[in-house]
Amino acid sequence: MAENMDHPSVSTVLGVACAPKNDHVLQPGALDRKVGVSRSQESKGLIDVQPVRGTRDFGPEEYRLRQWLFNEFEAVSRLFGFEQFETPVLESEDLFVRKAGEEITQQLYNFEDKGGRRVALRPELTPSLARLVLAQGGKLTLPAKWFSIGQCWRYERTTRGRKREHFQWNMDIIGVPGIAAEAELLAAIVLFLERVNLSSEDIVIKVSSRKVLQAILERYTVPEDSVGPVSVVVDKMEKIPLEKVEEELSALGLSPEASSGIIAATRVGSLAELEQLLGAGNEAVRELQQLFSLAQGYGYADYLQLDTSCVRGLAYYTGVVFEGRDRAGQLRAIFGGGRYDRLLSTFGGEQRPCAGFGFGDCVIVELLRDKGLLPSPAHEVDDLVVVMEEGLREHAAGIAQQLRKAGRRVDLVLESKKMKWIFKQAERCGAKRMVLVAPDEWKQGLVRVKDQATREESNVPVAELMNF
Amino acid sequence: MAENMDHPSVSTVLGVACAPKNDHVLQPGALDRKVGVSRSQESKGLIDVQPVRGTRDFGPEEYRLRQWLFNEFEAVSRLFGFEQFETPVLESEDLFVRKAGEEITQQLYNFEDKGGRRVALRPELTPSLARLVLAQGGKLTLPAKWFSIGQCWRYERTTRGRKREHFQWNMDIIGVPGIAAEAELLAAIVLFLERVNLSSEDIVIKVSSRKVLQAILERYTVPEDSVGPVSVVVDKMEKIPLEKVEEELSALGLSPEASSGIIAATRVGSLAELEQLLGAGNEAVRELQQLFSLAQGYGYADYLQLDTSCVRGLAYYTGVVFEGRDRAGQLRAIFGGGRYDRLLSTFGGEQRPCAGFGFGDCVIVELLRDKGLLPSPAHEVDDLVVVMEEGLREHAAGIAQQLRKAGRRVDLVLESKKMKWIFKQAERCGAKRMVLVAPDEWKQGLVRVKDQATREESNVPVAELMNF
Repeated sequence: MAENMDHPSVSTVLGVACAPKNDHVLQPGALDRKVGVSRSQESKGLIDVQPVRGTRDFGPEEYRLRQWLFNEFEAVSRLFGFEQFETPVLESEDLFVRKAGEEITQQLYNFEDKGGRRVALRPELTPSLARLVLAQGGKLTLPAKWFSIGQCWRYERTTRGRKREHFQWNMDIIGVPGIAAEAELLAAIVLFLERVNLSSEDIVIKVSSRKVLQAILERYTVPEDSVGPVSVVVDKMEKIPLEKVEEELSALGLSPEASSGIIAATRVGSLAELEQLLGAGNEAVRELQQLFSLAQGYGYADYLQLDTSCVRGLAYYTGVVFEGRDRAGQLRAIFGGGRYDRLLSTFGGEQRPCAGFGFGDCVIVELLRDKGLLPSPAHEVDDLVVVMEEGLREHAAGIAQQLRKAGRRVDLVLESKKMKWIFKQAERCGAKRMVLVAPDEWKQGLVRVKDQATREESNVPVAELMNF
Repeated sequence: MAENMDHPSVSTVLGVACAPKNDHVLQPGALDRKVGVSRSQESKGLIDVQPVRGTRDFGPEEYRLRQWLFNEFEAVSRLFGFEQFETPVLESEDLFVRKAGEEITQQLYNFEDKGGRRVALRPELTPSLARLVLAQGGKLTLPAKWFSIGQCWRYERTTRGRKREHFQWNMDIIGVPGIAAEAELLAAIVLFLERVNLSSEDIVIKVSSRKVLQAILERYTVPEDSVGPVSVVVDKMEKIPLEKVEEELSALGLSPEASSGIIAATRVGSLAELEQLLGAGNEAVRELQQLFSLAQGYGYADYLQLDTSCVRGLAYYTGVVFEGRDRAGQLRAIFGGGRYDRLLSTFGGEQRPCAGFGFGDCVIVELLRDKGLLPSPAHEVDDLVVVMEEGLREHAAGIAQQLRKAGRRVDLVLESKKMKWIFKQAERCGAKRMVLVAPDEWKQGLVRVKDQATREESNVPVAELMNF
């Protein structure tokens, strides 16, 4: 039930002169033809009951499962001392338009609002986080450790399993330049994985650094700024043929030698090999070594795997990047993230070191389902209160309300129903007790209580009903 | 960090031929001019850090307050045995377009998507609920008791305090024809109000029924279907002059006598007077009497006030309608709802009795703030873990992770900081303990623990750290 309660009407705020126009008010005589909601629509037959193409409804059963997942996201974030935030799903298009050829920008769910503004349903949360950080300005104490769970959108052809929205859990650390930030973020992800009963036998976290590509580009005197667009191209290597990658790198102004250097660097198999390629003093090498050491300390080193072909598809990463995959290699990325030290400054703010990750709600559920690890949380109440005679409804209502004030979850049967239906309902709602308000007992100040687990029944004085 | 993890790339699904177009990929030579994210945007200065006009950011502080409110909404819903659901914020425009002249339809935040579909950011949750109920079809057991908390949008001029979005808590009962449903919904609202320390001294719930208008219209042989559009006009009575109301009623095809009858009916002051006007057997009278009796049973009769000028602004209500106001009469409606028995059938589905309400997130916060009842929930962790020497960081990381596995919320300091900063941080994050990992203690297998409440310090063996 909507009713715009928080939206004062036009006329109260802008005065009578601005009262809503009569465009939609029926004209004289119109009553015979079509009036109000009903008749005009009734003839149409059933509306399309599916949600908008590419989106999902969460009925109670689906919602319970989703909430189980989100509760884990939230619980882990709080165990790490992170604070939650939320920004609007609708943002100015500017915030997301980047010129690096990213898929995320190409698939922007953007449109023009009625005021002629270019807006978009956010494709990701990070730019909004950056905007919010900039909006807080000096009032923000660094480091800030923030998390959010929000719906993200894209506009693309939908086919089986490809949706236009998904939810994403993000954790970000703003203001920590060192690799301790990335290590902490990965620790949070691993704690989540373990809480949902996954282990390093199920999940591998591929780790690399944008600084690897940066070092290679420096050799060929390609400007540092091209690390982003080059990474976007390299990210497609799994999906498009090598010639196409080389073609796109060339289109970015890279010489054939630079291209070859980049491609070779994505095939490095170990930290030792990387050190050989880039030199011992190289920053990428040093930082990755640190990350592996910290992972030992936290106890999640067995999840990590150096993989220099992992560059991630977002232009703004500047350092360590990582992504989570199922060991079997059957699913898409489960999560991904990294360091993005220059995003705030590209928005015109002061440069701030940042690192974070995004963790979607779809692939993880696929994986947990495949492994039989998905729970099926059930609906549950404490008491089912039943009125055995309509004349007692007021009393039953009072009892239900008292139980609720005492913290009991109470399903009150709102109609006269047969006992068969009531027993079934007690199962459906997972009631622990059934409380029957019946005439004979009521006359003696009693209600009949049935314990659903033990199946024991007894008559209980109303006053004692709260002693459970 | 987004990265479209749940959105497989174009090329993996549709094949190489459908790989993303190169529109946004820079052309050869472009590197000198503008490359990637950074340079092109850096020159622009600070972006607009405000959220899109009419929308709100929830930074950590605002989010905590909002979450406190939503937790109360949710807790009350669960105490009533309701199940949560969620539908997409984006819906087909059709779902909301009604011809009754409602403000909610006139201010629809609608647009055309890239596929030429007319879509809208939902202005209210009820039509989506109805759609979802229809989608569940035979699989749904009635009655269904469902709730949702979702963001709703409108497109209108924004001025101080008038936003384009708000959140709304909805509870709906599908499948119960009797007034027990409305009474139960009001009981939930009252329990919420009492949990946030409001009482009937603060809040009045105005109650009436669309069947009052229906009875009057029947006298003048105006078709039943016009109750909706007539109610939409009557709803404006507080805001626009009487002549204008009469004009609009006339535009709906009502005779001057019918108009006068309608207006007179909105001025009835008591149930007795209403009975006199409509007759003792009248359904509106009987149902309202039942509602007041049940309210006695639940214990919230002191909140209720018969007010036949309360009709609510949505066309689809068919029976009891109600709205919550501050007794002082200074604020807009706090919540509103009623019975809408024909919404499912106007969508082409089987007719199902329904009742529900919407409760916004803005006016209630205004009221609680005015009355000094708004809490200021603080950020809180259990342990602040501090590394006193960088060489010990790996050990500190291990300790932090163990504490988290044991369920402690741990803020780990990720850099070398001065003690002054650390003491300040312990306050900022509301830590209960400070855990210092320092060289001398560590050599003896100890960490230094400070209880923030008692200010007591002690050296504790690492193994005992978990015994809190």
